[in-house]
Amino acid sequence: MLDESDNWGRWGHDDERGALNLLTPEVVAAAAGCVREGRVLELSLPIRGATSSPAPTTVPHLRGRPLPQHFMSVDGGDYAAGTRAVGAGLKMADDALVVTPHGTTTHMDALCHMWSGDRLYNGHSADRVRSYGAGRCGIDKAGPVVARGVLFDIPRLKGVPHLAVDDRIGPDELQACLDEAGVELRPGDVAVVRTGWPLVWQSEGPEGYWAGQPGLSADGGRWLAARDVCVVAADNAAIGGLNARQLADEDLADDLHMILLWRHGVYLAEMLWLEELAEAGRAEFLFVAAPLRIEGGTASPINPIAVL
Amino acid sequence: MLDESDNWGRWGHDDERGALNLLTPEVVAAAAGCVREGRVLELSLPIRGATSSPAPTTVPHLRGRPLPQHFMSVDGGDYAAGTRAVGAGLKMADDALVVTPHGTTTHMDALCHMWSGDRLYNGHSADRVRSYGAGRCGIDKAGPVVARGVLFDIPRLKGVPHLAVDDRIGPDELQACLDEAGVELRPGDVAVVRTGWPLVWQSEGPEGYWAGQPGLSADGGRWLAARDVCVVAADNAAIGGLNARQLADEDLADDLHMILLWRHGVYLAEMLWLEELAEAGRAEFLFVAAPLRIEGGTASPINPIAVL
Amino acid sequence: MLDESDNWGRWGHDDERGALNLLTPEVVAAAAGCVREGRVLELSLPIRGATSSPAPTTVPHLRGRPLPQHFMSVDGGDYAAGTRAVGAGLKMADDALVVTPHGTTTHMDALCHMWSGDRLYNGHSADRVRSYGAGRCGIDKAGPVVARGVLFDIPRLKGVPHLAVDDRIGPDELQACLDEAGVELRPGDVAVVRTGWPLVWQSEGPEGYWAGQPGLSADGGRWLAARDVCVVAADNAAIGGLNARQLADEDLADDLHMILLWRHGVYLAEMLWLEELAEAGRAEFLFVAAPLRIEGGTASPINPIAVL
Amino acid sequence: MLDESDNWGRWGHDDERGALNLLTPEVVAAAAGCVREGRVLELSLPIRGATSSPAPTTVPHLRGRPLPQHFMSVDGGDYAAGTRAVGAGLKMADDALVVTPHGTTTHMDALCHMWSGDRLYNGHSADRVRSYGAGRCGIDKAGPVVARGVLFDIPRLKGVPHLAVDDRIGPDELQACLDEAGVELRPGDVAVVRTGWPLVWQSEGPEGYWAGQPGLSADGGRWLAARDVCVVAADNAAIGGLNARQLADEDLADDLHMILLWRHGVYLAEMLWLEELAEAGRAEFLFVAAPLRIEGGTASPINPIAVL
Repeated sequence: MLDESDNWGRWGHDDERGALNLLTPEVVAAAAGCVREGRVLELSLPIRGATSSPAPTTVPHLRGRPLPQHFMSVDGGDYAAGTRAVGAGLKMADDALVVTPHGTTTHMDALCHMWSGDRLYNGHSADRVRSYGAGRCGIDKAGPVVARGVLFDIPRLKGVPHLAVDDRIGPDELQACLDEAGVELRPGDVAVVRTGWPLVWQSEGPEGYWAGQPGLSADGGRWLAARDVCVVAADNAAIGGLNARQLADEDLADDLHMILLWRHGVYLAEMLWLEELAEAGRAEFLFVAAPLRIEGGTASPINPIAVL
Repeated sequence: MLDESDNWGRWGHDDERGALNLLTPEVVAAAAGCVREGRVLELSLPIRGATSSPAPTTVPHLRGRPLPQHFMSVDGGDYAAGTRAVGAGLKMADDALVVTPHGTTTHMDALCHMWSGDRLYNGHSADRVRSYGAGRCGIDKAGPVVARGVLFDIPRLKGVPHLAVDDRIGPDELQACLDEAGVELRPGDVAVVRTGWPLVWQSEGPEGYWAGQPGLSADGGRWLAARDVCVVAADNAAIGGLNARQLADEDLADDLHMILLWRHGVYLAEMLWLEELAEAGRAEFLFVAAPLRIEGGTASPINPIAVL
Repeated sequence: MLDESDNWGRWGHDDERGALNLLTPEVVAAAAGCVREGRVLELSLPIRGATSSPAPTTVPHLRGRPLPQHFMSVDGGDYAAGTRAVGAGLKMADDALVVTPHGTTTHMDALCHMWSGDRLYNGHSADRVRSYGAGRCGIDKAGPVVARGVLFDIPRLKGVPHLAVDDRIGPDELQACLDEAGVELRPGDVAVVRTGWPLVWQSEGPEGYWAGQPGLSADGGRWLAARDVCVVAADNAAIGGLNARQLADEDLADDLHMILLWRHGVYLAEMLWLEELAEAGRAEFLFVAAPLRIEGGTASPINPIAVL
Repeated sequence: MLDESDNWGRWGHDDERGALNLLTPEVVAAAAGCVREGRVLELSLPIRGATSSPAPTTVPHLRGRPLPQHFMSVDGGDYAAGTRAVGAGLKMADDALVVTPHGTTTHMDALCHMWSGDRLYNGHSADRVRSYGAGRCGIDKAGPVVARGVLFDIPRLKGVPHLAVDDRIGPDELQACLDEAGVELRPGDVAVVRTGWPLVWQSEGPEGYWAGQPGLSADGGRWLAARDVCVVAADNAAIGGLNARQLADEDLADDLHMILLWRHGVYLAEMLWLEELAEAGRAEFLFVAAPLRIEGGTASPINPIAVL
């Protein structure tokens, strides 16, 4: 079994950046070389905030989470109702956003997001994660992801529109994707794993989406960690699968967040939208995601992009 | 004088994307070709949220704006106090962010952010900008910026650490930067304009920063618009200069937001941090900024990056 | 049919306080005289905020509304994790609340909350209700309610634990309550109307609660307005009944908000918890509710009390 | 010196309600008997929320605190701009409030707000105060305050418009107020202490207000605690005085929050507006404040009232 001691300390005693250390200038420059067509795809769900309408409930999300709220503090309606323009005629719209990323929208987890015992990734004390933010391993320590993305389109491999709720993706399927595409995974790559599960929100509604979720198996996670990916980015909500209570079923040793985030410092990007990318049929591309520099954040909403 | 009729309709009657239409696959692919070293720089200020401490007031911002608030809904302290781990031992930290981008942190304006009369950019009705979001020209219509960035390091050109509060940057200085660097501006470029003003927050404190701000002159803005940049990204708060009341002094015809955003659909990215980029001394690079897909948003906080 | 012209202007052209003008010192002093035992009952639902847990979803609320969020910015867990005490040993907990009153918790509507056409209550222009708050008829114009409360315990009258989803309370039932209790309704009273519907949340869960709601009939509303109550306070969500889509079925002339709030300036307090009050069996008491002075607010969360 | 052992346990081992236990039905009924004229006064500051304007900064508050934000999610402006009415013509305004009570507006502290060592009031473990709320001694445990209020108008006693920044109110001045008014303090009373300091915000602006604050001396606090008041309600920000860094100067044994809240379970209501009450010249009255039932809250914004 993989143990934290295998990986902690790999990038030094003080490291809070984990597998993103793999993104050396050489790796980044090589990733930029993956751009061929120059087509840019967004890989995120919309942030559908609202307050007096149930609009936010119409975007895939985990049940019971506080959904985004978006407020306009001045808008066109105010001018229609008589608000005076500024100075010689300037009018403006301004707004505010309240967002809780985990489970509600496309986001990247910080290394402080999950742990076991008293230690975060790399042995940092969990006691440093306090009400005023994570003093260790916050999302501000990550920095941007500029890397080669490799798509693992599992539904395409299996010839289905989306995985079934109980499907767990193992090493064989991951390897088969690479073989089919004729690409190999390299250190510093972003593994982009498609399950197609967001399509279930559209076809079967919230209850179908909440019935559970397909995802990586523990061995699938270990296989990716062993190949030194810097990020696993998936279109499901928790990288691993979920049961009908929206919880992972694995025990601690097999939990995907423990294997990837905690033991190996591999970042997790969740709730991506990968349908256009899947249609494009490109297995490798430039992947860019720049988390907001939220000091001590446990995550950041992101709009990851693929440049084909 | 440039008039809205010069540019509106250029990308079609329905266009809500403005100058980002210049980012054709060819332009994007060429921009990716600017990557030489593979070094990645973040160009944003930290988002220093807090609630019971004045921490957020220590990051440059316009006076009187609501500063970011960052809340932890479960953290290491809770476990230290006895919260039970989930299942077999999983612990987690979770958080929420409240953010009002304009004037408080690095962000990109949507085309709906400012207008005059009853029409947004391209003639869209300002009546569509309502309390539940902008139905036209919201930040969700922008899409990611993947472009060549060109640095206009005005303090370096003038041999000063930062511009003076009354400095207004005109075409001559912009051209001189290009000449010095031996680069030319091309359609679809991002003009990255450095004033050095955030250094004043550090050296003179909030009162110094709030005494006004240097920025582009109206002619400087027109010069950039005429060269078809897709974004103007600056380290000041409003692209143009500000007076001591933190307002633009120009009349409507000369207002930088009117010239760039409203007439030409040129996006504005404000409150960047450009010091490391200036030190790197590279005049052209790959610039990437991916606004969050906030439906109907007037802006998005961003963490723009330069890949050298 | 009652028309707005019957009542608007009653307290002057500029009035923004409506039926609370009935609370003259004499009426208030008489209300204080209703206190006999000195027992104090809270008539509100708890505000169960949370962010990373679904706790808020366990309190009665209308479907699809943004539920309260409660954040601790420093707490005991932080000290357990090592946060240093202030000065010689002081420790403190601090928090923040995000609340959208309508449909989520016990609250009192402002007179600006609903209207028809272009005019608020008393002819104030609806154009004054803007993104930065209601310039007319906001909750800050109400002032505190110190009045005699009269309980209309309809389930008790009918010998049922709670009303059925389609029950609409008319004048006969209201009068029968008074007759049974041997009290009469006086100008400036608060009519406290119990349906028992919150019990359905407990017995049948959210889906049962959302199946619709019992409430006042239009004639019941008119009957109360004609008797010059200053507030109608009920334990359902909208004073009138709701259908399964959580909307009122009445047309405009019969809509309870139109009849009471808009035409007569009678304030509405909704989502009260009246079970202990019902058990106490007292038909008249001192009723106090003091809305927060939220400038331009459309409502305020309240914790109304009955002093028996 | 007063020690926690003097008072803890007085109302039982499990007590979380502290001095509000003094509000027996007899005390409440007697308090209701203080109503003579029936005049109702609000004793709170306005909650001036806004987002795109500095309006909230114009109400007295402690420096560096997050000020209230008030958002309209639908308003009259939207209808002016074309939003369709609901059904047959109903229009509505809806809003949301973000509020951090301590230091920003009139509020009542929960017993969990401050402590020393590992124990809250009455020995409850501080470990129960976590990110998801205070499991012990939260504001939801307080219940409403319906009591006799006794005004200590210290500026009037001293013949000044407001106290000086360094004034500390001791037992002699408190007793002199009672003597002058010819009233005596009784168990369960609310001591309403006026310093007049909010007037400084108006006359000298924020900097004057922030130069420090007058307040109770430690002996003044002990004197009130010894007389079994249930609440001390003042128009300053922290009951005790503050220095120019907005901190209390007393050591732990003399800290007013420790003496009143922590040792004796006496609730603290802060940042009241007492000017109209002072003008009324009534020394005793019915005082009512009903904190919102925020589960686990460290405080609640309140709109306390005096019924004369």
